Amino acid sequence: MERKIYLNNLPLERAREIFWDTALKREMAMVELDTRLAAGRVTAEPVFARISSPHYHASAMDGIAVKAADTFGAVPTAPRRLMLSQNAFPVDTGGALPPQCDAVVMIENVTFPDSNNPQLIEIREAVAPWQHVRSIGEDVVAAEMIIPSYHLIRPFDLGALLSGGIFQLKVLKKPLVSLIPTGSEIIPPGRIPNSGEIIESNTYTSAAAIEQWGGDVTRQAVVWDEVHLLEKAVSRAVRFSDLVLISAGSSAGRRDHTFHVLDRLGEVLAHGVAIRPGKPVVLAVVDGVPVVGLPGYPVAAYTVLELFIRPLLYAWQKQPIPPREVLHARSSRRILSSLKEEEYLRLKVGKVNNNFIATPLARGAGVSMSLVRADGLASILQDQEGVEAGDNLVVSLWRTLREIENTIVCLGSHDLSLDILYDFLKRSDSPYTLSSAHVGSMGGIMALQREETHIAGLHLLDPESGSYNIPYLKRYLPQKEIRLVHLARRELGLIVKPGNPRNINSIADLTREGIIIVNRQKGAGTRVFLDYSLAGENIDPNRIQGYDREEFNHLAVSAAVKAGNADAGLGIRAAASTLGMDFIPLAWEDYDLAIAAAFYETEQYNTLIEVISSPAFRAAVEKMGGYNLKESGKIVK
Amino acid sequence: MERKIYLNNLPLERAREIFWDTALKREMAMVELDTRLAAGRVTAEPVFARISSPHYHASAMDGIAVKAADTFGAVPTAPRRLMLSQNAFPVDTGGALPPQCDAVVMIENVTFPDSNNPQLIEIREAVAPWQHVRSIGEDVVAAEMIIPSYHLIRPFDLGALLSGGIFQLKVLKKPLVSLIPTGSEIIPPGRIPNSGEIIESNTYTSAAAIEQWGGDVTRQAVVWDEVHLLEKAVSRAVRFSDLVLISAGSSAGRRDHTFHVLDRLGEVLAHGVAIRPGKPVVLAVVDGVPVVGLPGYPVAAYTVLELFIRPLLYAWQKQPIPPREVLHARSSRRILSSLKEEEYLRLKVGKVNNNFIATPLARGAGVSMSLVRADGLASILQDQEGVEAGDNLVVSLWRTLREIENTIVCLGSHDLSLDILYDFLKRSDSPYTLSSAHVGSMGGIMALQREETHIAGLHLLDPESGSYNIPYLKRYLPQKEIRLVHLARRELGLIVKPGNPRNINSIADLTREGIIIVNRQKGAGTRVFLDYSLAGENIDPNRIQGYDREEFNHLAVSAAVKAGNADAGLGIRAAASTLGMDFIPLAWEDYDLAIAAAFYETEQYNTLIEVISSPAFRAAVEKMGGYNLKESGKIVK
Repeated sequence: MERKIYLNNLPLERAREIFWDTALKREMAMVELDTRLAAGRVTAEPVFARISSPHYHASAMDGIAVKAADTFGAVPTAPRRLMLSQNAFPVDTGGALPPQCDAVVMIENVTFPDSNNPQLIEIREAVAPWQHVRSIGEDVVAAEMIIPSYHLIRPFDLGALLSGGIFQLKVLKKPLVSLIPTGSEIIPPGRIPNSGEIIESNTYTSAAAIEQWGGDVTRQAVVWDEVHLLEKAVSRAVRFSDLVLISAGSSAGRRDHTFHVLDRLGEVLAHGVAIRPGKPVVLAVVDGVPVVGLPGYPVAAYTVLELFIRPLLYAWQKQPIPPREVLHARSSRRILSSLKEEEYLRLKVGKVNNNFIATPLARGAGVSMSLVRADGLASILQDQEGVEAGDNLVVSLWRTLREIENTIVCLGSHDLSLDILYDFLKRSDSPYTLSSAHVGSMGGIMALQREETHIAGLHLLDPESGSYNIPYLKRYLPQKEIRLVHLARRELGLIVKPGNPRNINSIADLTREGIIIVNRQKGAGTRVFLDYSLAGENIDPNRIQGYDREEFNHLAVSAAVKAGNADAGLGIRAAASTLGMDFIPLAWEDYDLAIAAAFYETEQYNTLIEVISSPAFRAAVEKMGGYNLKESGKIVK
Repeated sequence: MERKIYLNNLPLERAREIFWDTALKREMAMVELDTRLAAGRVTAEPVFARISSPHYHASAMDGIAVKAADTFGAVPTAPRRLMLSQNAFPVDTGGALPPQCDAVVMIENVTFPDSNNPQLIEIREAVAPWQHVRSIGEDVVAAEMIIPSYHLIRPFDLGALLSGGIFQLKVLKKPLVSLIPTGSEIIPPGRIPNSGEIIESNTYTSAAAIEQWGGDVTRQAVVWDEVHLLEKAVSRAVRFSDLVLISAGSSAGRRDHTFHVLDRLGEVLAHGVAIRPGKPVVLAVVDGVPVVGLPGYPVAAYTVLELFIRPLLYAWQKQPIPPREVLHARSSRRILSSLKEEEYLRLKVGKVNNNFIATPLARGAGVSMSLVRADGLASILQDQEGVEAGDNLVVSLWRTLREIENTIVCLGSHDLSLDILYDFLKRSDSPYTLSSAHVGSMGGIMALQREETHIAGLHLLDPESGSYNIPYLKRYLPQKEIRLVHLARRELGLIVKPGNPRNINSIADLTREGIIIVNRQKGAGTRVFLDYSLAGENIDPNRIQGYDREEFNHLAVSAAVKAGNADAGLGIRAAASTLGMDFIPLAWEDYDLAIAAAFYETEQYNTLIEVISSPAFRAAVEKMGGYNLKESGKIVK
């Protein structure tokens, strides 16, 4: 188990400088392309028109081509007479003027005075030379520069190019990026993996990102974790690629070969950059081709792509990096960050009471859903220890500002109906969307207190009165004006393995020797219910194994039971049935939405109430089982 | 020559309402797609994870998998001893934990105390249950909603989808748009057209635009201007298309069949909308398929695409229309606009002295270069008669604000070296670009006066002193601090047909019977030179035929001579030689750049001076012939 640690910790800016200095020595070649296929490509040289457009004197309307001098003095009361085919020639819009003509009379100003002589016409208005004529070069003049070098060709540029007689043109080659997936545990998408197998996904994300950023992609076969195989794959790829990305194996672990291989084949510019996630990146050059070892964790890999590869691809295509909207948001919580790295946070952002509030998503490098759910990114610089709740964060947005402003923020307890609600809002004609984060019922109440959410999902049982939610609002938010709207009644119970092999039928059974449970986090309504039930039966929580193991939502509890981490966990029926678990019902509870005063009667609120009161929404939620939405949308308080 | 005028003049908003109401009755079907190909597509239904990710308990680092309880109490001074393969198992990052383990000890906290017993290890730090473990569902929980309906799939969504076991998913079909080019005069791109022939370009622009906006395109064969052929093409296209666009023939001219055909095959919703350009559009529906007759002029066609088709394609894909940056700019001039239509202006925008200045480009519907050159669009509403110089225009930008801010504005005389300069700036590493508009030397001086340009290109001969430019600055801009930088000496002369068939050798020859000239616009330095030369020889301009025919730049003068509109025109040598014309030299003149004070010593200015002083730039300009750049970049005043 020999291992060497090569990882260093180069500051980001230094690493980018070193990498780009080397990578940008490579320039994209010129390739010749049919103009019709050139939209989205970048010119390699200026393009000059070969012909003028129009390339002949063209009539600008339907009418009669004439010599202007022949019409001088014509007025409706004293028209000039001309003869068709002699000194007057019918012409359509776009048609060529006969050589002797230099103007067009609009058809409205022409009459046929003699039905026996259809060639005779009368012109009722004089025209000046070149009137109603699109003369040669009106649009494009031959030899004129249509577009310069390094110009990103847009759809209407094609029109001017083709009209200017440009049928072929020289564009910059798109950078060809080879992706090399590595890992003996990798299987291609298509079947459910066995334990220890991982579905290859990173290189598909990378491929799509690279194409979006102007690169061409070639995916190589998966390389097993053996040095000589990786060496062969890299040696081959650098022969035809502008950039090679090796997926996974970039760290200093036992099976991490990227560094060694690149060190042997070429020059490693950096191994380890002071960013998080993404630290164990390898930046190298082999035979003049930049080669990057990407970390295996999806968020780390994507962070490296954003920070190093995206700017490189745009630079190779001589294009500015598309700017992202930036906004200043208040951090909803304290975020500690290491002084060892610059940290890139994925954030949810919402606008509540005219303040933008940012909440960090899961920070683990393995949580790809944090990318999916993110509204934007913010960085905490290396010399910052973190930010305090309420501090300003500069967020680079992944959605438009308008979308952020149209987002209904829901912090609080997790319920599967919120996902359905999110989907129904997306399907509605309204511009509004839902962003829900699961911080537990008490977390929702605190967020209402700090004015960081529009609504909070609650299912808090009051042990004294045995009633739901209202006592908590009175106790914790006495000064706040809060409306409570009913969303659902739902069935709570114990999630157990199929067939209930441990024969668990009550809360009391959880204390039995050898029974291990999985619990919810502090502040979750489900945990409050468990504590209430334990207190009711005078059971000391310390007697229950696994009481301290916390999961953050119902599905995770059910998944833990399914995986065998626990014999039981408290949750809702739908979470059990969705994963094929059994369910021991204990109670029905009220899941309500607490609504901040400033959110009442907004358009967003009305849309929300409309959706949750609709028969289609009720049916969709009840279909999951364990739900009763007869009174969804009813104002409780 | 029978014709009926069907064109009406529906207000834009009404026309859009009618068209979209009908078009949006059509919905895009669901299609199933391999997840790996789904980036950029839109989900047709919510996607729920089929498996968790990780789908097994995975080590989060290289280390030793253990049962946490076995390590309790371990510290460096009192390590716990474990045996490999018994109760300790080496595990790599991402590897599966053996079933009996629930934690991982980092390899850094493990030692091998006995070299004779390689199975014996010492754990120097206790771990908690599930420490250094990525437990099942940490990223994605089975049955969790990964993305909702109508979600535009981004690169990193692929990662979460594949990890969640989604290998196929249902997306919205892309709208299939049939393009039908029409016109008996149309030829495909590939050869230089004869008189009366037009290179088909509009449907290529349309195709590229539609693809950019999320549609799929099928181009049909060109249809000649015959009713039955168009009828057949449309009847066929509506059978398989979501939208049919007929290119050209939408007006009420003799060869315009679109209206009649659509009126016969289906229902015409509108013929003629109060927009300019784009008025003669036909909006119809045939067998449930929206069919649009696009005008033949390229700018009119593109305007219709932007106003009607772009929003429709995004609506069909359930996506918001990508917002464009908007800025408020001062109109540099008075713009009169008809009360009959809402006019869409293509504008050049520059930032001069912290003011955004907008200048309309050529307003003709046939000038496709006005699209190529535009920085953005502004509309003048139907009930507005226009705007005054200095009025505010709301410009929807086609470039980023940053690009606008990095643009050096050059108004004034036209010189071919400015195109070369534009190209050199694009090729430089600087972010700066050049926007030059040709308003003549005097126009440039006026623009400096009104602070609407950074620099002005001048070549104004002072008749009294015989010297260039400086006398004009003193006369017209006495209060302004202006720097004058030399750009080029260039040869001015008469552009004549090859072989000089009319034997024109001097200014005096222009007065000969039958000689027709083409002139430049008032305020152009070249016209000043002509007037100066005529005065020097006591020639009355009225004696010269064509003196009143104005072109706006050198190439257009040369093109007019080449086309036979004129026998001669005054211009620069390069304009003659580029189009194969002959050139009768008359003088060398100074073409200088007058620089506004506020622009001195800016980074833009320095970049500009650097480029025009460079040997490469000098060589490129001199290569055109008739140029001497020995002193380019020298400060004249």
